[in-house]
Amino acid sequence: MSAPVIAFSGSHIDRADHIRNDPQGLAALKTWQARLLRLDGLDPALTAENMLEWGSLADAAPDSELVFLGLDGDRGCFAEVRTSYPSGSPHAGPASWHAMAVLEAGELATYGGARSLVSWHARHRFCAVCGSPTALAKGGWQRTCVSETCKAEHFPRVDPVTIMLVEHAGQILLGRQPRFPVGRYSALAGFVEPGETIEEAVAREVFEEAGVRVRDVTYIASQPWPFPSSLMLGCHAHADDPAITVDITELEDARWFSREDAIDALEAVAHGENGRAFGAPPPTAIAHLLLRWWVERG
Amino acid sequence: MSAPVIAFSGSHIDRADHIRNDPQGLAALKTWQARLLRLDGLDPALTAENMLEWGSLADAAPDSELVFLGLDGDRGCFAEVRTSYPSGSPHAGPASWHAMAVLEAGELATYGGARSLVSWHARHRFCAVCGSPTALAKGGWQRTCVSETCKAEHFPRVDPVTIMLVEHAGQILLGRQPRFPVGRYSALAGFVEPGETIEEAVAREVFEEAGVRVRDVTYIASQPWPFPSSLMLGCHAHADDPAITVDITELEDARWFSREDAIDALEAVAHGENGRAFGAPPPTAIAHLLLRWWVERG
Repeated sequence: MSAPVIAFSGSHIDRADHIRNDPQGLAALKTWQARLLRLDGLDPALTAENMLEWGSLADAAPDSELVFLGLDGDRGCFAEVRTSYPSGSPHAGPASWHAMAVLEAGELATYGGARSLVSWHARHRFCAVCGSPTALAKGGWQRTCVSETCKAEHFPRVDPVTIMLVEHAGQILLGRQPRFPVGRYSALAGFVEPGETIEEAVAREVFEEAGVRVRDVTYIASQPWPFPSSLMLGCHAHADDPAITVDITELEDARWFSREDAIDALEAVAHGENGRAFGAPPPTAIAHLLLRWWVERG
Repeated sequence: MSAPVIAFSGSHIDRADHIRNDPQGLAALKTWQARLLRLDGLDPALTAENMLEWGSLADAAPDSELVFLGLDGDRGCFAEVRTSYPSGSPHAGPASWHAMAVLEAGELATYGGARSLVSWHARHRFCAVCGSPTALAKGGWQRTCVSETCKAEHFPRVDPVTIMLVEHAGQILLGRQPRFPVGRYSALAGFVEPGETIEEAVAREVFEEAGVRVRDVTYIASQPWPFPSSLMLGCHAHADDPAITVDITELEDARWFSREDAIDALEAVAHGENGRAFGAPPPTAIAHLLLRWWVERG
């Protein structure tokens, strides 16, 4: 697994961050040639060929703010931040799951990054320090408080989340959240808190959710997950004692599964089905990639 | 380096997160036995024996909010969020560097986690969604908008930052920021942005800051860095072409250093001095740990 395909990574757009700090350079990109990513609320608009749909800056509402996503060749790519959005679940909805299933990897990554940024702007129109309005700055990679006495600078959030396969005697620990589809089990996961390493967060989450103590935490892979703006940190760890105590405020169930269970579930999910022992997460989820990594290392 | 000592990790306090959601359990901990971490602004207050100084809840100002840090045995540990703080640099100041030099590892971790949380509260008294005031919730692990029509929930930030040793032909790439002490060079670093994996962020930052393309990024270790709330993600990568183009808006200089340079600099910094070729970062910085990892792997 030296070069895994991780959903939401590999955008072809050059972030060209030097332009963010260059008001003249940024203005010069806002021509009739510039591309505006079409969104339906926060969902992607797709063409008949299952590509991202792009328009021109003329399509943006007059009172919208524009986020500079980067360069496609020499053309500026932007996304529109509207003045209001329907409030919705932070989790991926049907339109996002559809996009994950049909979009080319680089296109999906472009959408994911844009979605995280646009939703951050939509939820940060006011200054958390003083309550005054904020205005988009640096091409959308900052918001600045408009109050002359505050002028606080705010930056897009990226929330690190640990997600881990815990192993004991050739089996792995998976859990089931109430909101999961029928039969689905997946890797345990939880946000990294202030004052923790990745490795400490893994150990705390597994103990909180399943009552299992772990050792020898190793990092496997990461994934940006734009619902709304997580950085998934995929890890592996070992447990010496398999006794499980499920925290029912977090999980409906947690169990140990064998390598055969995992192989069967991965085969079944490729056909959209559950395996005999459980239903695996879909290929776009990092939990799927962790399962695949684990069964392939033998 | 199977068990590196990473500054700001290893707090002895049990986060006891189930109590955060239990108002009665939380209230029951606010007794005369509870401990209140003493802070001087955001700096630590130290005893004559170089331990963290703790008082009782009676020491908190009447209009302060209380953050539940966790349990020390069966005693609740809290920190005070005052109504105002002197505005200051987000970087570590002299009092913090002193604490890093003298505090026992677990104590330093307790301070770091508390500092990140308290400074987050101090800068999030208002709702970023609607501008209304917010109130502390869930023992300080959330703030909630007081507006009945909004009620938005806000969570403490943890900002992932990549920091990387790039290697070419047995040498490593280090850079110098203008604010560094005389002679200091350190690993390049930068925030992970929405829509990026750790590995993509490493590649983008090294190219932006030094014009160097990298491959084969591997994760080495992580560190919480409470200035104000970073999660440092220490990585290693390889470069095929050593030609450097320094981005002078970010760095004053960037250069390749040999293993002998690094060994000499690590020896010198143990005595508070610069090495012959450069001054290494202090032992509490993850860049120091990365350098040590690199020279020890031979």
